[in-house]
Amino acid sequence: MRIDSLHISRHNDLFLEKHSQSFHFLKRELSDKGVDIESIITKIQQFQVAIPSWALGAGGTRFGRFSMGGEPGDLFQKISDISIINDLTGAAGAVSLHIPWDIPENVSTLTRYASECGITFDAVNSNTFQDQPKQALSYKYGSLCHTDRKVREQAIQHNIEVIHHGEALGSKSITVWLSDGSTFPGQINFRQALSRTKESLQEIYRHLPADWQMFIEYKPYEPQFYSTVIQDWGTSHLLASACGPQAFSLVDLGHHLPNTNIEQIVATLLSLGKLGGFHFNDSKYGDDDLTVGSIKPYQLYLIFLELVSGLADPTVANPPISYMIDASHNVKDPLEDLMQSIEAILLCYAQALLVDFNKLNELRDKNEVVLAQELIQDAYRTDVRPLLREARLRKKAAFSPIQCYRENEIRNQLIKERGITNKAKGL
Amino acid sequence: MRIDSLHISRHNDLFLEKHSQSFHFLKRELSDKGVDIESIITKIQQFQVAIPSWALGAGGTRFGRFSMGGEPGDLFQKISDISIINDLTGAAGAVSLHIPWDIPENVSTLTRYASECGITFDAVNSNTFQDQPKQALSYKYGSLCHTDRKVREQAIQHNIEVIHHGEALGSKSITVWLSDGSTFPGQINFRQALSRTKESLQEIYRHLPADWQMFIEYKPYEPQFYSTVIQDWGTSHLLASACGPQAFSLVDLGHHLPNTNIEQIVATLLSLGKLGGFHFNDSKYGDDDLTVGSIKPYQLYLIFLELVSGLADPTVANPPISYMIDASHNVKDPLEDLMQSIEAILLCYAQALLVDFNKLNELRDKNEVVLAQELIQDAYRTDVRPLLREARLRKKAAFSPIQCYRENEIRNQLIKERGITNKAKGL
Amino acid sequence: MRIDSLHISRHNDLFLEKHSQSFHFLKRELSDKGVDIESIITKIQQFQVAIPSWALGAGGTRFGRFSMGGEPGDLFQKISDISIINDLTGAAGAVSLHIPWDIPENVSTLTRYASECGITFDAVNSNTFQDQPKQALSYKYGSLCHTDRKVREQAIQHNIEVIHHGEALGSKSITVWLSDGSTFPGQINFRQALSRTKESLQEIYRHLPADWQMFIEYKPYEPQFYSTVIQDWGTSHLLASACGPQAFSLVDLGHHLPNTNIEQIVATLLSLGKLGGFHFNDSKYGDDDLTVGSIKPYQLYLIFLELVSGLADPTVANPPISYMIDASHNVKDPLEDLMQSIEAILLCYAQALLVDFNKLNELRDKNEVVLAQELIQDAYRTDVRPLLREARLRKKAAFSPIQCYRENEIRNQLIKERGITNKAKGL
Amino acid sequence: MRIDSLHISRHNDLFLEKHSQSFHFLKRELSDKGVDIESIITKIQQFQVAIPSWALGAGGTRFGRFSMGGEPGDLFQKISDISIINDLTGAAGAVSLHIPWDIPENVSTLTRYASECGITFDAVNSNTFQDQPKQALSYKYGSLCHTDRKVREQAIQHNIEVIHHGEALGSKSITVWLSDGSTFPGQINFRQALSRTKESLQEIYRHLPADWQMFIEYKPYEPQFYSTVIQDWGTSHLLASACGPQAFSLVDLGHHLPNTNIEQIVATLLSLGKLGGFHFNDSKYGDDDLTVGSIKPYQLYLIFLELVSGLADPTVANPPISYMIDASHNVKDPLEDLMQSIEAILLCYAQALLVDFNKLNELRDKNEVVLAQELIQDAYRTDVRPLLREARLRKKAAFSPIQCYRENEIRNQLIKERGITNKAKGL
Repeated sequence: MRIDSLHISRHNDLFLEKHSQSFHFLKRELSDKGVDIESIITKIQQFQVAIPSWALGAGGTRFGRFSMGGEPGDLFQKISDISIINDLTGAAGAVSLHIPWDIPENVSTLTRYASECGITFDAVNSNTFQDQPKQALSYKYGSLCHTDRKVREQAIQHNIEVIHHGEALGSKSITVWLSDGSTFPGQINFRQALSRTKESLQEIYRHLPADWQMFIEYKPYEPQFYSTVIQDWGTSHLLASACGPQAFSLVDLGHHLPNTNIEQIVATLLSLGKLGGFHFNDSKYGDDDLTVGSIKPYQLYLIFLELVSGLADPTVANPPISYMIDASHNVKDPLEDLMQSIEAILLCYAQALLVDFNKLNELRDKNEVVLAQELIQDAYRTDVRPLLREARLRKKAAFSPIQCYRENEIRNQLIKERGITNKAKGL
Repeated sequence: MRIDSLHISRHNDLFLEKHSQSFHFLKRELSDKGVDIESIITKIQQFQVAIPSWALGAGGTRFGRFSMGGEPGDLFQKISDISIINDLTGAAGAVSLHIPWDIPENVSTLTRYASECGITFDAVNSNTFQDQPKQALSYKYGSLCHTDRKVREQAIQHNIEVIHHGEALGSKSITVWLSDGSTFPGQINFRQALSRTKESLQEIYRHLPADWQMFIEYKPYEPQFYSTVIQDWGTSHLLASACGPQAFSLVDLGHHLPNTNIEQIVATLLSLGKLGGFHFNDSKYGDDDLTVGSIKPYQLYLIFLELVSGLADPTVANPPISYMIDASHNVKDPLEDLMQSIEAILLCYAQALLVDFNKLNELRDKNEVVLAQELIQDAYRTDVRPLLREARLRKKAAFSPIQCYRENEIRNQLIKERGITNKAKGL
Repeated sequence: MRIDSLHISRHNDLFLEKHSQSFHFLKRELSDKGVDIESIITKIQQFQVAIPSWALGAGGTRFGRFSMGGEPGDLFQKISDISIINDLTGAAGAVSLHIPWDIPENVSTLTRYASECGITFDAVNSNTFQDQPKQALSYKYGSLCHTDRKVREQAIQHNIEVIHHGEALGSKSITVWLSDGSTFPGQINFRQALSRTKESLQEIYRHLPADWQMFIEYKPYEPQFYSTVIQDWGTSHLLASACGPQAFSLVDLGHHLPNTNIEQIVATLLSLGKLGGFHFNDSKYGDDDLTVGSIKPYQLYLIFLELVSGLADPTVANPPISYMIDASHNVKDPLEDLMQSIEAILLCYAQALLVDFNKLNELRDKNEVVLAQELIQDAYRTDVRPLLREARLRKKAAFSPIQCYRENEIRNQLIKERGITNKAKGL
Repeated sequence: MRIDSLHISRHNDLFLEKHSQSFHFLKRELSDKGVDIESIITKIQQFQVAIPSWALGAGGTRFGRFSMGGEPGDLFQKISDISIINDLTGAAGAVSLHIPWDIPENVSTLTRYASECGITFDAVNSNTFQDQPKQALSYKYGSLCHTDRKVREQAIQHNIEVIHHGEALGSKSITVWLSDGSTFPGQINFRQALSRTKESLQEIYRHLPADWQMFIEYKPYEPQFYSTVIQDWGTSHLLASACGPQAFSLVDLGHHLPNTNIEQIVATLLSLGKLGGFHFNDSKYGDDDLTVGSIKPYQLYLIFLELVSGLADPTVANPPISYMIDASHNVKDPLEDLMQSIEAILLCYAQALLVDFNKLNELRDKNEVVLAQELIQDAYRTDVRPLLREARLRKKAAFSPIQCYRENEIRNQLIKERGITNKAKGL
């Protein structure tokens, strides 16, 4: 189902006057500080974050899964769900498919439908961490790192097929996340596992179309609980470098050890021109996959300071970054959850855009620690929600996406349409 | 299936001569130090650790599950599996049931079978962290802490039924582990959730038979990723104290934040006479549920120092502790894995029994830090495997349980008997 | 030195018009939501946080210390420094002394001076974690937990003397932070160390004046790196309960293991009526003692949600909480740093005051997870700085404390007055 | 002072008979398994670990320092202390100097003395994390990363001088550990700081003699508590690669975030041929600098599995590794502490030497997880102390170093000679 644009505009009408006051007050305040509001609004309007196809159903844990009903049963329904989010927020115009959960059966019908929905196809994701019903060889002991060449070949072949699926849909990148590693000390030979993984990735890389990118994720643990072949950005970077100029590292916010300074990793990868993708979520303990900004919004802001300043820096030779939300949720309506994530991302992005980096770097050069902190906290403490709303209004998206979603009782309609018990494929 | 005692004795015969030399050499060495070997062997022989019914199948993660085949399909098969472990190790003479995964249908047949297998019924476990097919109300937002009284009552009633099941089987304790908590800041009222949980536990406690104990687990996170109602030993102890003298805290080694000094918690709970149960496993990151002793064997030893010295101390008024292995495994044969866990537990227990605590406390009184460390490391560095083997031989268990298990091709027989695809109930 | 009120009013004059617009705009926006602005401003004006005497000099690490010059050389200068902060912020009207670093020599002169400065005496702090030049017995192996009764008695006597010092000055509480513990496994007997600590605290408690409170801190590690006698809130609470109704736990934000849910601990202690004191700072790794709000401002806000709602709840029987900033700084001017901390504290306090807790609890009762999050994030995202400025202006404090401090070149004056190399006593 | 070899041989005589039995029993048991005992003993005899000059006095924390008396006051006394350790253990024949704490005044006298003591000069260490009394520019805001070119040049020059000192003494490597980083978000520009550090290191590298190596340490935090320029092995490796073939990474066991899989980092660096140095210590929380093997001996063993197998692998092109103990101690006699560390290191080394890596790799190739774990645990559980003692006896070192040290009352003699209050330079 699609959300009627009329419903959105009716919703918006109720807020226009009040918003106008807030927006103009903020605009004047920021303009007095020398901020170019219009340029910021344009950037906010342009910012897009992909939605993974598996984020539209309830995300379970090993202890259980609690669905809220109305989950999308196929790829068309998933794209439909994303289009609802996109219509309401104006910032979610792409889907990231996960193969084999989302093998597109009828490509032309699918791309036509997606196009009608205003949804494009972002990075495609391979899956060699689970066994599929008819799969010849098991990934129980790894895929690209497996000791058995036949298993590696099967996994390589799967990645190549994923690229083919992506090509058919107009994707331009593949994200490789491996669960390869070991659960017990002694289980694997670290050096050989790394070496085999490198060769496998190089083989996949050889099948990468010329205008594609390959993103290599890293993660310290889970589902393996002793070691992971690509345990950190350093290993990911080694492998991306070994593959070639189209290979990049991908940062998932939840894939770090406790207390990691992630923003510095972002800065380092930008320095190297090797930051390809970004998976947004939030976490308190591990790879909790919580709503973006629900736990550590200031950390997210610090990361955006690096992204905004890094991508604007002419000395940084990094391609545009592929953004995706990678959250999973047991207790919220996934669509509402995704809209909360989008809001949190855009808030930090807008706050980072307020920062005068020339001024900041001057303070840093003089080691004016207190004033540098004041400068970045000033932007963080600014309530930039009127900017986000203005950007949405200009795009005909909703003043308050979640409120509009509820007013239109979307979830109830989805349940009516799809039933209460159907389960989206995914974790 | 049972393992033929003849097969065990044949296996043992091959090692007897060699073992005799090792054992007597170690015996002489330890005797020279004043250690009473016979007393230690007796204690090793008596040590028993319960096996949970869910540990006999492959343990999955949210990313997938890889079975090894031959998993037990019902309670009889689970008891049979445990009896194999017990026959081989002599240390696993009890099962810990998990309701509703293991609702005993025919109690008299079951208890008779268990008795024939030499297996008794340890603590029973309730489950209010998952929804069962015909369940009236959902535990999606909690059970004993739920805001809705009706859900709390359903969960209380379930616990009472679990007690009834346990009574019928001869269990003497119930373990309550709650996943209750919240996944997002703002979601719950901490104080009210704690208060409701306390009242619910008190209600269950009122139904506890006079000779029963209630064990209250704590865990900082997972499957909730923001807060857990019973997040630490302090909260567990508050609740156990609020319930009464039959309520105790239960320590699960995996249920702690990074770097927690668990052995000190054990000591504190022993001081309070409130340590009821113990769940063994090992972990590198979180509640990884790995084989006991596979990651931090020295920590396990330090914990055993507290258990052995605490339980031997006449000033400590703590009942005997209920031990259980709580591990979960995706890449090993669960039976082999459990035997590795048992070996690791017994090793640390035996090493702790070597320590002269009077001498240790004298050194501590004089702040002889170096010599105190030397003393406990001396015991830890001693190869006590001959003591474990001697204890097993005296009990007609196997010299080398895993080797004997493999010689008899037990897994293949189980697969033949039960098939390759059946799946044990559990996580 | 004191800051001339004329300088402050001149500073303020420059901002009055602009502030008036911002304040009234925010006031109208919040009033439309039903917020009672005046009541909030009153609360902000009343909020006071004590400054520890040791926070006014550079705080070093074991690797070195870098002073910025002009450090206070005695207690009078320390009080003078705090009065500067208080004059500028209006929120720091108390000093927390640390004995023996701050033994008051001439009490009447000192109290008169403090009174003139508008500074009162908050909790006094004992120090048994260092040896002082003429000290009879060493605390190398502990103080209140020491195996030697004589050392314990010396430490107890020291605490009693600290109480006497505090009584003379008008303090009403003593904070006990112990470094007692062990650095190596085997070093101490956990149970005996806990028992001895309990008895020592009880002895100190017996000397507590009837209108005093005793605050017992906890900390998991540092300077001991294996175990700490009071490792967590649970142990602190055990000890406070064993002492009596005037003993309470004290929460220092830096004294927790990675990922601890501190706000829940705050809620639990409030439930028990046993939260006595609070030490503010921030940290990324351990007890980093960073500027409040510089790393995890959202966590601080979540804690204030518990403080504000808990203290307003008639079912909570907790006395008013004693707040203190406990930060330490190598790279900032400490006075500026403290003003940044105060701002961060007041921001979170003000944001928490915006929350409609009745509404929040209604949402929680219905498990409206998304809307509960929206509600608390709405307050957090509000730019409440105009409220803080309004509160300061009404108190004749500075519109922008740090800017005013710099305009008046206070640090240069302090250096001129006190020199560049003098070192405040403390860490 | 030196320890009289007669005293050692007298000490040894008491244990010879008993040792002979233990050793031959173990020898026979291991020989039966196909282990070449003589080759292992030779390797143990050859293993050497350097002692840093600063480890011979009490190591304090920011909270205080407790000396035990008799600390070495100059470089001669430090070398004398190390020679005592070396005479007793046979494994500590080198000192690692720290400039400027240990600027050698009279090189020829010093080298002659060291030679008489049997001590050589291992890696020299620069110090740009503290300001020295007459230093022109401060390192408060960094050294090699500093925004001010003059500070960077001063720091570069210091490193070059350290190389010169080392050359005069016969050292062949320099270890660079930087505290450079930031304490607060916003303080530094990550990318520029990294770039400046790279250029500074390259400049130092240009002054490296042709037969020297440069070791670049990494550390995630402390004394900076927000970011460290060289936060992890990945950054260290980037910098070492940017310098050239004589630059390597150095792994300090305490310099990792919680739960890091260090052994995998070791394996990866070996794969790259870029593991230069190793600093041994142990820790429970952070960079605790505890006695090696006192907290996580199994982790140390797993690391040695990588070192032993990696260095023996012809496909690994890594130079010999420079080993050093980097511990710091407030509660032990440092010499005893160092001897405990050496014992723990040699135990793990010897255990790793027992492992049949061909067999292990066969099991890994077949994903025999259980048996691979059994294999490595079998070696770990073996009591290899008789091998260490045999190696010591053959080298005329002490059967039991600490016992011999105590029998000869070395500490008392050192106190008599040097006094109770003198303090070794260092942390």
